[in-house]
Amino acid sequence: MAQGFGFEISARDGKARTGVIQTTRGEIRTPAFMPVGTAGTVKAMLPGSVRETGADILLGNTYHLMLRPTAARIERLGGLHKFMNWERPILTDSGGFQVMSLSDLRKLTEEGVTFRSHVDGSKHFLSPETSMEIQRQLGSDIVMCFDECPALPADEATVAKSMRMSMRWAQRSRDAFGDRPGHALFGIQQGGVTEHLRGESAEALKSIGFDGYAVGGLAVGEGQEAMFSVLDYAPQQLPDDKPRYLMGVGKPDDIVGAVQRGIDMMDCVLPSRSGRTGQAWTPRGQVNIKNQRHQDDPRPLDENCTCPACRNYPRAYLHHVFKAQEIIASMLLTWHNLHYYQQLMQGLRDAIAAQRLDAFVAEFHAKRAEGDIEPI
Amino acid sequence: MAQGFGFEISARDGKARTGVIQTTRGEIRTPAFMPVGTAGTVKAMLPGSVRETGADILLGNTYHLMLRPTAARIERLGGLHKFMNWERPILTDSGGFQVMSLSDLRKLTEEGVTFRSHVDGSKHFLSPETSMEIQRQLGSDIVMCFDECPALPADEATVAKSMRMSMRWAQRSRDAFGDRPGHALFGIQQGGVTEHLRGESAEALKSIGFDGYAVGGLAVGEGQEAMFSVLDYAPQQLPDDKPRYLMGVGKPDDIVGAVQRGIDMMDCVLPSRSGRTGQAWTPRGQVNIKNQRHQDDPRPLDENCTCPACRNYPRAYLHHVFKAQEIIASMLLTWHNLHYYQQLMQGLRDAIAAQRLDAFVAEFHAKRAEGDIEPI
Repeated sequence: MAQGFGFEISARDGKARTGVIQTTRGEIRTPAFMPVGTAGTVKAMLPGSVRETGADILLGNTYHLMLRPTAARIERLGGLHKFMNWERPILTDSGGFQVMSLSDLRKLTEEGVTFRSHVDGSKHFLSPETSMEIQRQLGSDIVMCFDECPALPADEATVAKSMRMSMRWAQRSRDAFGDRPGHALFGIQQGGVTEHLRGESAEALKSIGFDGYAVGGLAVGEGQEAMFSVLDYAPQQLPDDKPRYLMGVGKPDDIVGAVQRGIDMMDCVLPSRSGRTGQAWTPRGQVNIKNQRHQDDPRPLDENCTCPACRNYPRAYLHHVFKAQEIIASMLLTWHNLHYYQQLMQGLRDAIAAQRLDAFVAEFHAKRAEGDIEPI
Repeated sequence: MAQGFGFEISARDGKARTGVIQTTRGEIRTPAFMPVGTAGTVKAMLPGSVRETGADILLGNTYHLMLRPTAARIERLGGLHKFMNWERPILTDSGGFQVMSLSDLRKLTEEGVTFRSHVDGSKHFLSPETSMEIQRQLGSDIVMCFDECPALPADEATVAKSMRMSMRWAQRSRDAFGDRPGHALFGIQQGGVTEHLRGESAEALKSIGFDGYAVGGLAVGEGQEAMFSVLDYAPQQLPDDKPRYLMGVGKPDDIVGAVQRGIDMMDCVLPSRSGRTGQAWTPRGQVNIKNQRHQDDPRPLDENCTCPACRNYPRAYLHHVFKAQEIIASMLLTWHNLHYYQQLMQGLRDAIAAQRLDAFVAEFHAKRAEGDIEPI
């Protein structure tokens, strides 16, 4: 375990756990949702506002930051925390997933991935060693191993071959990371939707030893049912006493199901991205604020929500600023969605602590089944 | 004078004055700069943040709001203040200027202007009477007369004819406005750059009687020199004991020159619009944050500025988020620019109160002459 990094589970309910991850930059209450600050900003939010929603930690994207403004520049300017004015913990991904999904002209070998930047076409190389170096330059508190995964569905042989290379890369990541007090390194389990491959991957990671373990390679198009069927066993293949992080998840009901299955950390662009397109998340489900039925509605988006969008504005206003393509539309709905997500996490933490998670989940689904309020 | 509305001059320095406009929604310190909230939002800012910059009053655009979301809808929802979550004073323009500059297929007669919406092509009619009704529906605290003005340069006969119709419209505006306690009506002086026409317009307005008087028809392409030469006499043609409002001005040095010439109120989209395009205003002049020279600069935009952009971020960060087209770029630079404008107004008010306006203006120009800090 890295010095200055720890995980304490304070309560359990079924497979679910609640607790605190200790870092040198502050505590992370788990289960935790990490807003995504891709390029050094959670889009349309000031860092103080992100914190006000209840976020303890942000995620930064190595792929985006290495290309622009570059990791070397961020290091010269004092690191990512100072650069983006966020003093609390930051987790950075390894760049592996986004190289595969965003860049052009990739060439994947045992050594690493050569690719061209989507920003300016320049040529770059990412490997376990370069990813560790870039994440060191960024100064992130939780560093992710460099891995790769095939898009699902993929045949078992393809998944196995890819997973085994990722496990060799996990060892190289561990070796390159070295000993960095105050900075944690997480391994990433692969193996697709095949239980014995997930098990093989978990054993490989445990024998290397990490400060936390991610369930990777999900939320890549397999659907919620397939994801949950993996989560029915995958978290239990990983060490019980270390944080388990489900990468890139998800919708509110994905999050609830993942927490029930023993996941401690998640991240997703969904609340911020959907905020910019007029999609709001509430206890009653998803609301498209651009729908004309809101144009005369004097009621808030969610009457029980305490975010600035709900406290200060009628639905009619939110509808108007989206139709008029005003920046405040993205600002308000992103804030609302991040607030809703963090409220959901607080609800999950409280329910686990009180050992009433089943009841909480039943209420969560019942409220969603009611659907949005009727038009006035 | 409208009930609940008053103007008290507390100090003078040359032609310049400082004081307070009293409204039922709070005080407006003069000279005042009014940020523009065209469509129910000061772009890229939350209302609380606008207030934090020091703004006492916002301007709303009748033309934009009547088309979307419509004045009737805003009235049903409780008025513009409640709709946009700004409880302090709002001044609305009459729509006249923007009909001329933005709409299609205008037809101008003595009765008013028929035009098509730039939003959806729908047909609308604005006249002194409909403009007063729309501004009543919006609930603005300071209502502007409906007027029109030709683009400059224009020959004297054209300017005179237009001005005289605007004066007939001023009487119709006054008649249609009626008696609305707590709401003020301002007349608008026209007459182009011709002193005797400005004088004729001022006399016509004074004989009707208004709560305040605007100098209209400037900042329409005539240049600063021509504008100042009009401001050398026009404010003094208007009543000394009423607020004088210079519409649509301007750059910081325009503002300083206008205040020296006896102007009490101004509005302009410049600080917010230029914030969205990467142009920052500082005591040292204009800075284009997109310029590559800022990409490694760890220093704030303005080391003496206390806005969030300058307090929390290096120039390198502001440069990065503009290059990456992040929303936070517009948010931070708009905040900075509005903060700078309000600091400038506070400096002008303090200088007039201390009767050291000439020295303040000399320092203002000397600082700008130094230019931006050298690249590191």
